[in-house]
Amino acid sequence: MQGTEIIERAERLARHSDSTAHYTRTFLTPAHRAAAAELAEWMAAAGMTVRTDAIGNVIGRYEAGDGNAKTLLMGSHFDSVRNGGKFDGVLGILVPVACIAQLNARGERLRVALEVAAFSDEEGARFQTGFLSSRALIGRFDPDVLERRDADGVTLAQAMRDAGLDPAAASSAAIDPSRLAAYVEVHIEQGPVLLRSGAPTGVVTTIAAGTRHAFHVTGEAGHAGTVPMPMRHDALAAAAEMVLAIEKRCGAGGSLVGTVGTLRVKEGSANVIPGDVEFTADIRSTDDAEVGSAVADVFAACEAIAKRRGVRLEHSKTHAVQAVPCAASLQDRLAASIERCVRGGKAPRLHSGAGHDAMMLAEVTEVGMLFVRCGAGGVSHNPAETVTPEDAGLAADVLLDFLRNF
Amino acid sequence: MQGTEIIERAERLARHSDSTAHYTRTFLTPAHRAAAAELAEWMAAAGMTVRTDAIGNVIGRYEAGDGNAKTLLMGSHFDSVRNGGKFDGVLGILVPVACIAQLNARGERLRVALEVAAFSDEEGARFQTGFLSSRALIGRFDPDVLERRDADGVTLAQAMRDAGLDPAAASSAAIDPSRLAAYVEVHIEQGPVLLRSGAPTGVVTTIAAGTRHAFHVTGEAGHAGTVPMPMRHDALAAAAEMVLAIEKRCGAGGSLVGTVGTLRVKEGSANVIPGDVEFTADIRSTDDAEVGSAVADVFAACEAIAKRRGVRLEHSKTHAVQAVPCAASLQDRLAASIERCVRGGKAPRLHSGAGHDAMMLAEVTEVGMLFVRCGAGGVSHNPAETVTPEDAGLAADVLLDFLRNF
Repeated sequence: MQGTEIIERAERLARHSDSTAHYTRTFLTPAHRAAAAELAEWMAAAGMTVRTDAIGNVIGRYEAGDGNAKTLLMGSHFDSVRNGGKFDGVLGILVPVACIAQLNARGERLRVALEVAAFSDEEGARFQTGFLSSRALIGRFDPDVLERRDADGVTLAQAMRDAGLDPAAASSAAIDPSRLAAYVEVHIEQGPVLLRSGAPTGVVTTIAAGTRHAFHVTGEAGHAGTVPMPMRHDALAAAAEMVLAIEKRCGAGGSLVGTVGTLRVKEGSANVIPGDVEFTADIRSTDDAEVGSAVADVFAACEAIAKRRGVRLEHSKTHAVQAVPCAASLQDRLAASIERCVRGGKAPRLHSGAGHDAMMLAEVTEVGMLFVRCGAGGVSHNPAETVTPEDAGLAADVLLDFLRNF
Repeated sequence: MQGTEIIERAERLARHSDSTAHYTRTFLTPAHRAAAAELAEWMAAAGMTVRTDAIGNVIGRYEAGDGNAKTLLMGSHFDSVRNGGKFDGVLGILVPVACIAQLNARGERLRVALEVAAFSDEEGARFQTGFLSSRALIGRFDPDVLERRDADGVTLAQAMRDAGLDPAAASSAAIDPSRLAAYVEVHIEQGPVLLRSGAPTGVVTTIAAGTRHAFHVTGEAGHAGTVPMPMRHDALAAAAEMVLAIEKRCGAGGSLVGTVGTLRVKEGSANVIPGDVEFTADIRSTDDAEVGSAVADVFAACEAIAKRRGVRLEHSKTHAVQAVPCAASLQDRLAASIERCVRGGKAPRLHSGAGHDAMMLAEVTEVGMLFVRCGAGGVSHNPAETVTPEDAGLAADVLLDFLRNF
């Protein structure tokens, strides 16, 4: 199938970037709105009716043969992390749109209606709002986030107004889940497992649990030349010890991982002892209990460091998701489609270390995920992220086979 | 003498701040220019002729009885670090202006002409340009700094043009050092030594040597959920280890101190493994050789960390000053004045861990420094920095006695 077109569209969409230096597309920026408009055009060209919902999701619908049929929802996100990869999220929109374009070209209607949701905010890089859009879709929009501010001080509510959305109406993005047959998400693996096993596609078994925490260390600012080392309460040195404690606790092996992705010295100068440091920690595992135990140990280690150094430590949970199993029946159907479309026998099954919109949808319907091989050593959230046209085409073949047999 | 007025002026000057949240005044911002204007008014009111030089220094002159007399230069800086203290620098302008106001009120002329230089940029917080203004005054202005940019991308040259200064003429701030008799700087101690010894003022023996370095760690960005811990090249975890290595190497005791004042994860997100981190290190001691040996050990430790973690390390020296002894004759004269004006016998002598404009002036003339007790536990570069009206008044008494006996 049309793997080349899928890759070309991903490349073309990546031109809509907040930065000219790298690919970054965050919630409701001009680049983000331009990407939404282009996705809507592609959906319409594939024979879908298109709407933009109250949280900026672009949703295309392709009716079933039977007007009373349930809806199989597919999709993924079109926002990115800063300096991200072009396929993360976007592939899960472009592959189903390509499948529906093929059905539409043949005038083919299926036993289920098909919808493709292009989620406007999953990474949450601008307002620190993970899964904002799929959360709104399942009726769990939290109005408190409207007051969050981006790095320029713009509130989420203002960003919505600037984009022609009504913040007060955000909750109306909720859909009626009783109309859903299931949710299926195609996604780049973002890791090295398929690459190493030589397989273009695989079936996801479980999406890992994860929590994110904001840490704030308050020490005592002072002159870098005059305060003797033993009298210091250096917030950055304390935070550095905490970063290493997190790395060590989460580095024991298995699916457990821990990342400090941001760290900021507030009001820092080269000649001032840092008094105020903020950082984030992201801890994940396929096992909910393992996440809980790692987080508890990290807090204890950080609190011990703070106490020993005479600095104050505050932390708050900013994000938490439990491990989400994919439905066994959807796993089996996706595996059967892989085995029909891809040479090489048994379909690989693997867990997802990354979170996906499917985690939100799992609260209201059964979910399944199809992973596509990630090139360049399995690198993602990085400009080096790649998918080959062959793999994209095979993913579309697998998904179309799955849809026709659903 | 008028200690209360000195403190009131310091408080009033601190209202000219780049931020409403805290006291920060950096080179050539609107707040900085307003402070310069107010200092010029106070100098004129004290009977001085006032000029603003080509680098934005405000310089007041009070003639001697004899038109051919040499000039005793006094002064300090009126820029601040971010979230700094109100007396750092400013005290060394306000105290000599108060002395000259007193001479002027009595129509008293001395054997030397007096000049007070209010230096426009010593901390260098906006353009990372330490000692910019006193360096220009001694004829060592470096035109390369004109292209440095602040956090908003404004060049130093543009900031000068916006303030009505001609960047091409900056070198003309140089004075003729053969006209100088000496340079004397009054400064808040910025440390706890005088506070602990119960003395309001002290004589500085040596100003510590110091170097500043910019470090850049390049690792590999990646998805926080999918890259197994052993496969990571996390630039922030590497930098955290380096921060602790610097703290450890410089924490052995004596006058050696080491500070990482800024650290930045470039393009960081909570769910992305950091690929790019920058930080600064500031290392000081009264012994030049000790600074050199600590810096060499720090580089070796950081390079070992980078190698072990598979990240790239670059570093460059951004600032270096050698230890500067104060002239023995000026130390003795200042000590004699303290002993005449302050109860308590022998004047304390102490070294300065902080750098001062006197380090620049020492290249062209003899320098002396008078330290004033720092309250609040010796805290400086911090809003809690304090000087009492009594101590400010005693410092003015000491300086006036010194001037009359020069």
